Amino acid sequence: MKFVTYVYEKKENIGILKEGGILNIRDVFKGIEEKNPPETMQEFIEYLDDNKLNKIQYFLNNKNIVSIPLDSVRLKAPIPYPRRNVFCLGKNYVEHAREIKITRISGNGIPSKPIYFTKVAAPAVGTGDNIEFSPEVTKQVDYEAELAVIIGKDGADIKAEEVEDHIFGYTIINDVSARDLQGKHIQWFKGKSLDTFCPMGPCIVHKNEIPFPVNLDIKCMVNGEIRQNSNTKNLIFDIPYIISDLSRGLTLKAGDIISTGTPSGVGMGFDPIKVLKNGDTVECYIEKIGSLINNVVETA
Amino acid sequence: MKFVTYVYEKKENIGILKEGGILNIRDVFKGIEEKNPPETMQEFIEYLDDNKLNKIQYFLNNKNIVSIPLDSVRLKAPIPYPRRNVFCLGKNYVEHAREIKITRISGNGIPSKPIYFTKVAAPAVGTGDNIEFSPEVTKQVDYEAELAVIIGKDGADIKAEEVEDHIFGYTIINDVSARDLQGKHIQWFKGKSLDTFCPMGPCIVHKNEIPFPVNLDIKCMVNGEIRQNSNTKNLIFDIPYIISDLSRGLTLKAGDIISTGTPSGVGMGFDPIKVLKNGDTVECYIEKIGSLINNVVETA
Repeated sequence: MKFVTYVYEKKENIGILKEGGILNIRDVFKGIEEKNPPETMQEFIEYLDDNKLNKIQYFLNNKNIVSIPLDSVRLKAPIPYPRRNVFCLGKNYVEHAREIKITRISGNGIPSKPIYFTKVAAPAVGTGDNIEFSPEVTKQVDYEAELAVIIGKDGADIKAEEVEDHIFGYTIINDVSARDLQGKHIQWFKGKSLDTFCPMGPCIVHKNEIPFPVNLDIKCMVNGEIRQNSNTKNLIFDIPYIISDLSRGLTLKAGDIISTGTPSGVGMGFDPIKVLKNGDTVECYIEKIGSLINNVVETA
Repeated sequence: MKFVTYVYEKKENIGILKEGGILNIRDVFKGIEEKNPPETMQEFIEYLDDNKLNKIQYFLNNKNIVSIPLDSVRLKAPIPYPRRNVFCLGKNYVEHAREIKITRISGNGIPSKPIYFTKVAAPAVGTGDNIEFSPEVTKQVDYEAELAVIIGKDGADIKAEEVEDHIFGYTIINDVSARDLQGKHIQWFKGKSLDTFCPMGPCIVHKNEIPFPVNLDIKCMVNGEIRQNSNTKNLIFDIPYIISDLSRGLTLKAGDIISTGTPSGVGMGFDPIKVLKNGDTVECYIEKIGSLINNVVETA
């Protein structure tokens, strides 16, 4: 099942993405005779358990309810206002760890422990929204296609073998990065956190649709040119490792988002470097999830 | 005026801290004939403007309303669930930049640009709460007394001369840090973000009570021994600089918290290093704000 946050007739809703369109969660709740439909994806994530998921699935399989055509809505980031910054990993694919030199790691350049940082994503932007920046603030804007994991159940000290139980689903994040700011401020946070620098979407795919451990092709295209092309099986630290390690002494909560790092092929890895420019279109694609597409706009 | 979040008779409230005790914001709102009293400090920060502040001040000066004795309440962090991670600065006092060697900065060790990172603070803990950690997760827990600025008005690209207008007030944060995790994970985030590692409080002091630029003594005592002792005038990057720089291309929002960095005297600066142990008491003091006091508990 795929979940979306969308705007239809000026109202923000959450819904289920089907082939023909979107089912408003209010109609689904009416159908399964549940009261108090969630207002936000955060509430829906907190609400959903296996029993309720089965009920919804049964209803979808057996009833016809009218869906809203996809071209009549505007998709937003599935979680437009996450409750905490997005948790991110740096240098989590071998070839990418080698291509980028902002933080040098001694030895072969491959981190021996995960590198965690965060990214402001309040709001996160959706597919179709612009990535905007002023050249007075940054002159080196780069893309990073990443698989993001959405936590479904609170937990600390989560064991690797119990990690899947704590996952709600998956989405795509473009971890847009101002490389000059990453370097200038030493810690990466500011260069990762400019307004509009967290495109997310187009939807959250429930974990039931993606066999674990995840094995998904991941790509990034700039103006149609393939720049990144890998598979999530190539993560240095895989999802069970990340979530068990990150949650040691730190409670992860339902609705938290963990972006697992980007493969090689970012603009900074080219010689000369390739930066995003006004008018560029960036498409981040992950198998079974879809495409997250954003245009680049340089402001005055 | 000083604002607190507190628990009284099992109910969480916000209130105004006076010499004799606490005034519940509901009673204050009744007194000034305002409807819909805020439920949280976040709502109160969004509500308050100069006009309303004057109304409250006039009411407090001219009416006697019964206050709740301070010893009958439990103070919480003034903003227990910030909407975004706490924005933090590293190495923002000269002597501290020299004493700590986790990230070496070329030249004289003094950063030429602010170093920003974030800290999970959801929940932040209050004065009187424990700082807890398992020795299996970290063996090098350290204190960092810091002045934190609370944003009162949204803004991006804020000019230095307009910064005070965007400030709501000030509080104290103990930027508790697991030094071994800071080093191991390269970026500082994880070592700064263990559960209970963001003590905040005891109150927020409104900016009207603290002349700008801020010139406040700041200290940290461990079991009564003075470890840190400086003044916020010694910040390398002062508050106008920080907020104007951080907000370049990044909208700061009402309720955001910026912790401005710690002076020298942290445990890692001693030779041999001094780490926090089970049973220690850490007191962070800032002139005109008060003391934030937490006991250290090692869990199994």
